[in-house]
Amino acid sequence: MLNWKNLDTLASYEKLQALKGHVDLAAVLSGDGAAKRVAEYQVPMAGGLSYNFAAKAVDDEILEALAALAEEAQLVDKYEELYNGAVINTGEKRLVLHQLCRGQLGEDVIADDVNKREFYLAQQKKCADFANRVHSGEITNAAGEKFTTVVQIGIGGSDLGPRAIYLALENWAKANGTLKMQARFISNVDPDDAASVLKSVDIPHSLFIVVSKSGTTLETLTNESFVKNALTEAGVDPSRHMLAVTSETSPLASSSDYLAAFFMDDYIGGRYSSSSCVGGAILSLAFGPEVFARFLEGAAAADITAKEKDIRRNPSMLDALIGVYERNVLGYPSTAVLPYSQALSRFPAHLQQLDMESNGKSVNRFGEPVDYVTGPVIFGEPGTNGQHSFYQLLHQGTNVIPMQFVGFKKSQCGVDVDIQGSTSQQKLCANVVAQIMAFACGKKDENPNKAFSGGRPSSIIVGEQLTPEALGALLAHFENKVMFQGFVWNLNSFDQEGVQLGKILAKRVLAHDTDGALRAYSDLLEI
Amino acid sequence: MLNWKNLDTLASYEKLQALKGHVDLAAVLSGDGAAKRVAEYQVPMAGGLSYNFAAKAVDDEILEALAALAEEAQLVDKYEELYNGAVINTGEKRLVLHQLCRGQLGEDVIADDVNKREFYLAQQKKCADFANRVHSGEITNAAGEKFTTVVQIGIGGSDLGPRAIYLALENWAKANGTLKMQARFISNVDPDDAASVLKSVDIPHSLFIVVSKSGTTLETLTNESFVKNALTEAGVDPSRHMLAVTSETSPLASSSDYLAAFFMDDYIGGRYSSSSCVGGAILSLAFGPEVFARFLEGAAAADITAKEKDIRRNPSMLDALIGVYERNVLGYPSTAVLPYSQALSRFPAHLQQLDMESNGKSVNRFGEPVDYVTGPVIFGEPGTNGQHSFYQLLHQGTNVIPMQFVGFKKSQCGVDVDIQGSTSQQKLCANVVAQIMAFACGKKDENPNKAFSGGRPSSIIVGEQLTPEALGALLAHFENKVMFQGFVWNLNSFDQEGVQLGKILAKRVLAHDTDGALRAYSDLLEI
Repeated sequence: MLNWKNLDTLASYEKLQALKGHVDLAAVLSGDGAAKRVAEYQVPMAGGLSYNFAAKAVDDEILEALAALAEEAQLVDKYEELYNGAVINTGEKRLVLHQLCRGQLGEDVIADDVNKREFYLAQQKKCADFANRVHSGEITNAAGEKFTTVVQIGIGGSDLGPRAIYLALENWAKANGTLKMQARFISNVDPDDAASVLKSVDIPHSLFIVVSKSGTTLETLTNESFVKNALTEAGVDPSRHMLAVTSETSPLASSSDYLAAFFMDDYIGGRYSSSSCVGGAILSLAFGPEVFARFLEGAAAADITAKEKDIRRNPSMLDALIGVYERNVLGYPSTAVLPYSQALSRFPAHLQQLDMESNGKSVNRFGEPVDYVTGPVIFGEPGTNGQHSFYQLLHQGTNVIPMQFVGFKKSQCGVDVDIQGSTSQQKLCANVVAQIMAFACGKKDENPNKAFSGGRPSSIIVGEQLTPEALGALLAHFENKVMFQGFVWNLNSFDQEGVQLGKILAKRVLAHDTDGALRAYSDLLEI
Repeated sequence: MLNWKNLDTLASYEKLQALKGHVDLAAVLSGDGAAKRVAEYQVPMAGGLSYNFAAKAVDDEILEALAALAEEAQLVDKYEELYNGAVINTGEKRLVLHQLCRGQLGEDVIADDVNKREFYLAQQKKCADFANRVHSGEITNAAGEKFTTVVQIGIGGSDLGPRAIYLALENWAKANGTLKMQARFISNVDPDDAASVLKSVDIPHSLFIVVSKSGTTLETLTNESFVKNALTEAGVDPSRHMLAVTSETSPLASSSDYLAAFFMDDYIGGRYSSSSCVGGAILSLAFGPEVFARFLEGAAAADITAKEKDIRRNPSMLDALIGVYERNVLGYPSTAVLPYSQALSRFPAHLQQLDMESNGKSVNRFGEPVDYVTGPVIFGEPGTNGQHSFYQLLHQGTNVIPMQFVGFKKSQCGVDVDIQGSTSQQKLCANVVAQIMAFACGKKDENPNKAFSGGRPSSIIVGEQLTPEALGALLAHFENKVMFQGFVWNLNSFDQEGVQLGKILAKRVLAHDTDGALRAYSDLLEI
C-alpha cells in the first residue's frame, strides 16, 4: 500500500534539512580527491549518455539522506503504480500512460476495455504506414506530385516537444540521408505566425497536421481555418492536404476534412505526448518511421533505468532528488538548462513547459495547500551563446541558480574547422568543462569586481553524439525527473488547472461580456 | 555633485520597505474604482506606446515613496551625467554612449579628440551608403550579380539584439515592401550552427558581416574561418563577400580581407550596441537605411522621455522603480517577459542578456559587496504560446513571478481570419487582457485545485502596431529601465567581469594545461 504524504511530514526530509550547507563545493572540486570525485559521481543513462553530478553540492552523506527520502517517499513504487495503470492523475481521474507509447514496462494496462500498449503501438504503426506511403509517392497531392513539407498546427504540448525534437534531429537527418520532408510549425493565435509560415512553404506540396486532443483548442482550430483559407486560395482541396491527431471521441476524429486521423487518449498529457502520435506523425513524415522508432527505443531504455531502486543507478531519480535538495533545503528559486548543442536550441523551452506546467502547483494531490516550495522557474539557451549573455548573473549575481549542462563529444554535421590548434567542437566542449569548474570553484581576486565566489552547482549529461536514441533518452530522463519530483512534493504533476481561468476570461472579453477593469483593459487594446 | 550610495543606506528605501504588502491587488482591480485605475495608472511612451501599471501592486502612497527614492538616488541626474560623457563604467573606466547613436541628448561629448555624436552619425551614414549601393546593384559579387542575403557572424550583444530586431521587423518589412535582403545569423561555436546556416543560404549571393568590437572573440573568429572555408570551396573570393563591424583599433579594422569596415568604440557595450553599426549594418542591408533610421528615431524619443524627473512621465524610470520594489521589498526572484506578438519571439532572449548581464552583480560600482539582491532572472516566450506551457506555474506556483506583457492592436501582415465572431488578432488581444486580470484577481473555488490566489502583478506595454519606431522605443525603454535599476542598486551596469573566468579556463583546457577535476572533466568529453 502506498503512502502519499507531504514532503514536510517525512522523517528523511528532516534529516536532509540538517545537512544544509554540508558541502563546500569549491573545496571538494579543487582538493586532492577532485578527479576521483568526477569519475565516481557519475551514473550511466540510456542512449549512451551519462549523468555526472560531481559539481553538485552533495557528498556521500547527503546521497544517503536522499536515498532514504526516495525510499520513504516510495518513489519507485509510485512509478510502478503509474506504469501499471493506477489513477495517478487524481484531479482529472486519469491514468498516466505516456511511457507505454515506447515500451511495456510492467503489467498489461487494460482501460476502457482496450489493451493500451497495443492501442499506442497500432497508432504508431498507422503513422509509420502513412509516412511510408507519402515517401514512396503512393499518397500525393491532386496533381500526383509528392509532398515535400509537413506543417504541424498545434500549441503547448502539441508544439514545443515535437518542434524541439525536429530541430534537434534535422541536421543529424540531413547528414545521415534520412531527411524525407522538411517540417514547420504554426502555434500562436497571432495571425502573423500562420501568415509567415504559410508564406515560407510551398502550399501545393505541403501536408498539414492539426493536433488537438480535445479537438476544441481555440488557437489550433483558428489556425486550422487560417490554413484552410490559404489552401483554398491556392486552388487546392484542403481535405487532401490535412491530417488530424486527436482523441477518438473528439469532433476531429471522424471528419471527412482529413486525409487520415491518428489517435491519442486522455491518458497522455500534452506535455508528455511527444512519444505518441502527436510527435509520431510529424516526425515519421519528416525523418522516416525508423528514426522515430529509434527515438522511442532511447526513451524506453530510460524508462527502464527509472525502475532502479538504487539512486546511484537511477539517474532521473537522483537528478530529481538533488533538485529537491537545492529547491527545498538550499532555497534556490530557479534552474538553468544549458545544452552545448545548437540543435537543442528549443529543448529548454520544451523542458520549461514539462517542468513548470507539471510541478508549478501549490496544492497536493488531494487538493490541500502545501507548506513548502514546489517547481522552480526553468529557463535556458544553448552554450556557448549564453556565456556571452546571462551567464554574468549566474557567475556573479546575488542568487545562486543551479545549472543543468548537456554536451556531446561529436557534432551532428561532421563539418568542422581547425583554428589555433583545435576544432570548433573541441572549443565547444572545452567551454562547457571550463564553465562547470568556474561556477563550482570560483576565483579569488584582489579586485572584488573580478572575484568569483564559486559554490554554484551544476550537473552535466554527456553523450557521444545527439542521435535519435540519445534524444529519446534525454527527453525521458527529464519526464521521469519531473515525475519523481512531483512524487516527492506529493503533487499531481499531470493536470494543469492553472491554465483554465484565463481561457474563461478571454471568452468573456470576446463576447464583450465585461465590466470594470476587464472592460477598461479591453478598451485599451480596442477589442 | 552626485551621491553614489548603496540602496540600503537611503532613507527613502527604509520608507518603501515599510510599505511592503500595502496593496491588495485583487481588491483594487475588482473594486469600484478599478476601471478608473486602469485609465489612470498609465504613462505615454515614445513610438506611440503606453506603459500601463494598473495591475502592479502599487498605489499613490507607494508611488510617492518611489518618487522619493528616484530623487534621493538622483536617477535622472545620473542619466544626465551619463549622456553628457561621464565615466559611468567605473570598472573599465569608460564612457557609456549608446544613446548618442540615436540622438544628441545633452552637451557635445568629445572623447579621444572626437565629437562622438558626429562619429556615430558618420558610421551610420557609411552603413546607409553601403547598403544603398548593394541594393542598387552598384556593389555586386564577382559575377556582377546582386547580393540577396546577409549573414551576421557575432555572439552575445553582436547577435541577440540584431537578431531579435530582424525577426521583429521581417514580416512588417515584407508587408510594407521594404525587405531588401533576407538576414541570417551564425553565433555558436558549435560547428553545426555555421554548417546548417551555410547550407541554407545561397553562398555566391550572400554577404557576411563579422562583428566583434575587440576583433578577438573566439567564437566569432572561429566562425569567420568556417565561413571563409565555405566561400573558398564555393569558388568565390571571401574578401568580396565579407564586411567587418569592429573598433578602429582592432585587428579587423584595416584588413584587406573585407569589402568594408564599420566602426563602433569602447563606449558602446555589446548588449547596448543594436543602435550602433552592430545593428545598423545588417538592418540597413536587410530593410534599407530608412527603416533603420525610423528604428533609431523611436529609440531617441524614448531616451528623451527618460529625462523627465516626474516618475509619472518617465515610463522607463517608473518601470525600474516598481521592479526594485518587487525585487527588494516583496522579494520576488524573477520576472517574465511575455510579448503577445510572434514577431517578438526572440526579444525576451535579448532582454535576458540586457538585464541579467547588466545587473547580475554582487558588488557596487566601487567594488564593495552589496547587502541586497540585485538583478532578477529574466525569461519569457510569446503569448499565447506560453499560456499553454509555463503559465501554470505563474498562476498557481509557490513563488510569485512579476510579468511584463506587451501587446499591439494591429498585426503586422494584415492577413487574418474571422472564426466564431472574432479575428485571430482580437483573440490574441483578448487573451493578454484576460491573463492580466486572472493573475491579478484570481478566482475562489470550492475545489482548491481549481482556485487561483491572484495577487500576481503585471504591467503591459500597449502599441498600435509593431513598427520600426515602436520597436526602437521598446528597446530603449528596457535599456533605460536597466540603467535606472543599476543606479538604484549602485551597480556598474556596463561591465561584465563575470564572463572572464570561463574564457581563461577554456583556453587552459584547449592547451591541455589542466589537472585535477578540470582534467577529469576534459577526459569525460574526450577533449
